[in-house]
Formats: sequence, structure tokens, C-alpha cells
Amino acid sequence: MKIALDAMGGDFAPKAAVDGAVLAAEQLDGQATIVVIGQEEAVRPLLDAHGERARNIEFVPATQVIAMGEHPTKALQQKPDSSIAVGYKLLHGSDVEAFCSAGSTGAMLVGAIFSVKPVPGVMRPAIANLVPKLKGEYGVMVDAGANAECKPEMLEQFAELGSLYAQYVLGIDRPKVGLMNLGEEEGKGTALLQAAYNLLKVNPHIHFIGNIEGRDMFNEKADVIVCDGYTGNVILKLSESFYDIMHEKGIHKDPFFHKFDYEGVGGSPILGINDNVIIGHGVSGPKAICSMLMQGFQMAKSGIADQIKDTFKS
Amino acid sequence: MKIALDAMGGDFAPKAAVDGAVLAAEQLDGQATIVVIGQEEAVRPLLDAHGERARNIEFVPATQVIAMGEHPTKALQQKPDSSIAVGYKLLHGSDVEAFCSAGSTGAMLVGAIFSVKPVPGVMRPAIANLVPKLKGEYGVMVDAGANAECKPEMLEQFAELGSLYAQYVLGIDRPKVGLMNLGEEEGKGTALLQAAYNLLKVNPHIHFIGNIEGRDMFNEKADVIVCDGYTGNVILKLSESFYDIMHEKGIHKDPFFHKFDYEGVGGSPILGINDNVIIGHGVSGPKAICSMLMQGFQMAKSGIADQIKDTFKS
Repeated sequence: MKIALDAMGGDFAPKAAVDGAVLAAEQLDGQATIVVIGQEEAVRPLLDAHGERARNIEFVPATQVIAMGEHPTKALQQKPDSSIAVGYKLLHGSDVEAFCSAGSTGAMLVGAIFSVKPVPGVMRPAIANLVPKLKGEYGVMVDAGANAECKPEMLEQFAELGSLYAQYVLGIDRPKVGLMNLGEEEGKGTALLQAAYNLLKVNPHIHFIGNIEGRDMFNEKADVIVCDGYTGNVILKLSESFYDIMHEKGIHKDPFFHKFDYEGVGGSPILGINDNVIIGHGVSGPKAICSMLMQGFQMAKSGIADQIKDTFKS
Repeated sequence: MKIALDAMGGDFAPKAAVDGAVLAAEQLDGQATIVVIGQEEAVRPLLDAHGERARNIEFVPATQVIAMGEHPTKALQQKPDSSIAVGYKLLHGSDVEAFCSAGSTGAMLVGAIFSVKPVPGVMRPAIANLVPKLKGEYGVMVDAGANAECKPEMLEQFAELGSLYAQYVLGIDRPKVGLMNLGEEEGKGTALLQAAYNLLKVNPHIHFIGNIEGRDMFNEKADVIVCDGYTGNVILKLSESFYDIMHEKGIHKDPFFHKFDYEGVGGSPILGINDNVIIGHGVSGPKAICSMLMQGFQMAKSGIADQIKDTFKS
């Protein structure tokens, strides 16, 4: 199995990316190979410096780089030899089983939708985000920001996608699905939320437990938290800021709060596409890159993409 | 000046309410009197037990109580002598300058809208919530849950209401208004957010600084955070749960996180109505009740309701 990494993506690329790739390659030796994609003159010397430790890494050159500020669609069209475009080519050609990047979220999303393509039956792919839980390990929130504007049917699909991820990648049996709302009672919330509630409660593929509230993010009520991408993005960034503030104040050592550390979590998978794609945090250091690659390996190993295809085939 | 309190509202009523009223009455002695409303047989003995300490408290009897689970509109109609209904009567008759309750949020909102009534020109009153800031004291978020479904013009009014509160009650000069979005750039977000952005950027009454993200809740970017009531409610309850978790783990002593303690903050004012109304947290103890009454006093003293009437008159 091969897991690809965009070595040019992220604020500390290519150094942090290469160092993270080496860490993951060592951990995965015998199970998977890391494929590092990037500009030869920048990446090769970094790989060479690791010597024998980089033996489980393959290098694939890409002459161009998509910067964070670039328009995603235009950038992918105008830079067909960028590390992101090359990564998607490898994925499309089944040369690799997963592609990870801490680079432009927009370009990664556009590539996922137009190169890898949504699974037939999926209206809109979504970004999943791991949610630290007080009891147990992690839950998953879908959508974390790919779709600001949602229809009820999209929220229903996010519930299905999140449930499959919770089941096959996180190993949660019969994951509980909660709809993020401003009150627990049925009938609460916007027209979108009310309509989504009605779809979710009769969906046989998921274990819907009803509405949840902001205070239920981290408790055991739901393993899969469903919301539109606007709300999910606000929740994600608010939670990150809490962790950052605690980190600054030096009060983050608690085992629960430690789970917020994205360095140990990896990145955010794009669910509902034909392959395994993970978007990493822009400020990813080597440990975060390594975690993202491990997460890509877990996704590929779990066969989650095929499970999603099977589910949405009917 | 008189500030009224629903002695029957909240999980620990009437004891916590009366004890909180006594604390506030002592602090406000010479500036304002606390009017305590509730069932005579339950409240009188509690007041008497405080003896001379309760001298700055007036008692107004109310024979009925609205429970947390009751339907707000029906309850107010069927219980005209409930503590909440009596409180609104006092407010309507100008017998008191503010009314505070830790009881049913729904009944308090319904009373605010149908008894006190919205200020002419205000489409929908909103719940304001104080936001702890890393630098400085507090900002304000509007709407924190009164209106799940919003129109762009409502978000614009929330910005105006929040700015007036920040200016006249929190004492922030030229408060900065941020629109909660999933990215900073203009054009981000849902159709609602895009339309609201366009209204906010040309509104001469406010100091709009553009979109903010979840990570900006607690930094100095915006003093007034504008969002729909669904998003605001999720943010509020998520933030509360963070504080609760830290509290449980005993790591809440930090001065910044201490600001999250609703006991010191008071409650959530309803903005855009003709009088001063504050809704308290259901689990309010005496200190929280006292803070809510002090907040009611500050609101009344600031003349915020008249400022809002003046602004929306035109």
C-alpha cells in the first residue's frame, strides 16, 4: 500500500513535511510506503539528509507549487504539475491509496471534487473532523466547512458518511448520530434542521438519537455530529482557539484537552469521494504530518471509500 | 430606581433567588431597591430570615409559578398571577426599571415580545450574551438563541443592538462589529451571510470590521459578534461546556477562564424591547442572581432602552 504526501503543503513545508514523512515511513515499514511529492531541488536534499531512515519513502517530482492565497480552481488548471495536481493524478491512477496535504484547503477540495469525483449518489462531499470525547477516544463531526449552504438531504448524507467513518475507521459499533441544534426537543431549530430531523429519524442506515446542543460536543451523547459546514467550521475553529488559549497558558496537559492537539490527530478527511483524501492543518509540524499519514493509512486499510460506494449505490 | 427579580425562577428557587437578592440589595443600597416577586408563603420566611440585611428589598406577591417545561405562551395566558407575568406587569406599569429571572427562557421571551413589546422598527428582539475577551473585559454576541431563522436585515439590526449595548452598558467606545463566518474574505459563507455583509458594510451606525471566524471569539478583533440565533446558541453552549469541563478538572482558576463563570457575569439581556429584561442561567446560585440584578441595574442606569428607541425611531 502507498500513501502520498504533498511535501510542498503547509506553513513549514517542505522541511516539516519531509520530517513527518520519515516518521510515518518508519512506523509503517512493512505495511505501507510513503510517496513524497514535491520540487526535486527542495525535497531531495531533505530526504537524503535522513539517509537510511528515508528508505521506506518514494519520491515523485512536481515542478510547481500552489500557494495558500491562490484561487483553487484556477491554480489547479494553471499548475498541472503542482504537488497537489500530481498527488491527485497518482490517486486517480490508483498508484497510491491515499493523498494527504497540509496545503491549500480550497485546492484540495476542488481536486477531490473534480479529479477524484464524488461517489455516485453523494450530493456533496463533506469535510469530517475528529471530535475529542470525554469518555472514549474521538467522535466525528460532518460537515466541518466544505458546504456552508446545505439542504436537508445533504445533512442526511453527512450523517451516513460520518456513521461509516465512525464505524470503519474509528471502530465504533453502531455509532450514535446527533443533529446539532439549539434545543433537544423535536421541532426545534430552523426549517433546514426540522426537515433534516424528519429525514434522519426514518433513515434505516443510521442510529439517530435526536437533536444535541453545543454543550454535547464532547460528551457521550453522539459519536457522529451532523451540522451544516458553516456551523461546523465555527465549532471547529472555536474549539481550536480554546485549545490554543489553554496551550498558551500552559494548562493543556490534561489527557482530555491533549486530544485537541491536532498534532496527534492528523487532519480532516474529505468524505463522499472515490478515494482517500486528508487535508491537514496549515501549521502542521512533523508530528502532525506523521499523524495525518497514519490516518490516511487507517482510512485506506479500512476500505472506507468502498463502504461509502456500496452504501450510496442503491 | 427599582430592579425586579422573579424569586420563583431557576433550579434553586426561591432560596438562591432570595439570597442573591439580599446580596444585590446590600450592594445597591442608596442607588436602587430590589423588588422580589413570588409566592408569599415560600418567599416571606426566607426574606424574614435575613432580617435587617433585607431592608432594601420590597416584596410583591404572585400566587402562581411557571415551570420550566410548560408551553411559554399558554403558561403566560393561563397563569396571569405567575411571578413572570407579575414581573412584566410591574415593568409595563413602570413600577420597576428592569426585570430579571432565572426561570423559563421561553416564557421570559414571550413576555418580552407580547407584554413589553419590541421597540418600533426592531424586526425581532434578540438575546445578547457576554463574551469573555483575552484582552479587555467582555464583548457581546447577538443573537444567542432567540431567532434560529434569520433574514439579512435581522442580522444588521443585531449588529446595531449589540453596538448600542457595548457602547452604553459595557462602555466600549466605537465598538468593532464582526460577522461570524467561515472565512474572513468578503463573499464567504451562506447567502444570508453574504447579504448581511453587504448591509453591514454600508451601515453608518456601526463600526463594521468584516467577517470573523470561530477562532476570533475571544480575541480583540470584534467587540460585537453578529450571528443567527442557532449559531449563537451553539457557540454559547459549547463555550459553557468548555468552562464546565475545566471546572470539573479544577483548571479554571486562570483570570481569563474565570470570566466564563456565569456566576460573575449575570444573565443574557433581551435587546430590542421597550424595557430592560435579563434571562438568567437555570442553575443560578445566589452569586449569579446578584450579578444578574447588578447587570439589570447597569442596563437601567445606562438608559440603553431609550438609546435603542432613539436609534430605531428614524
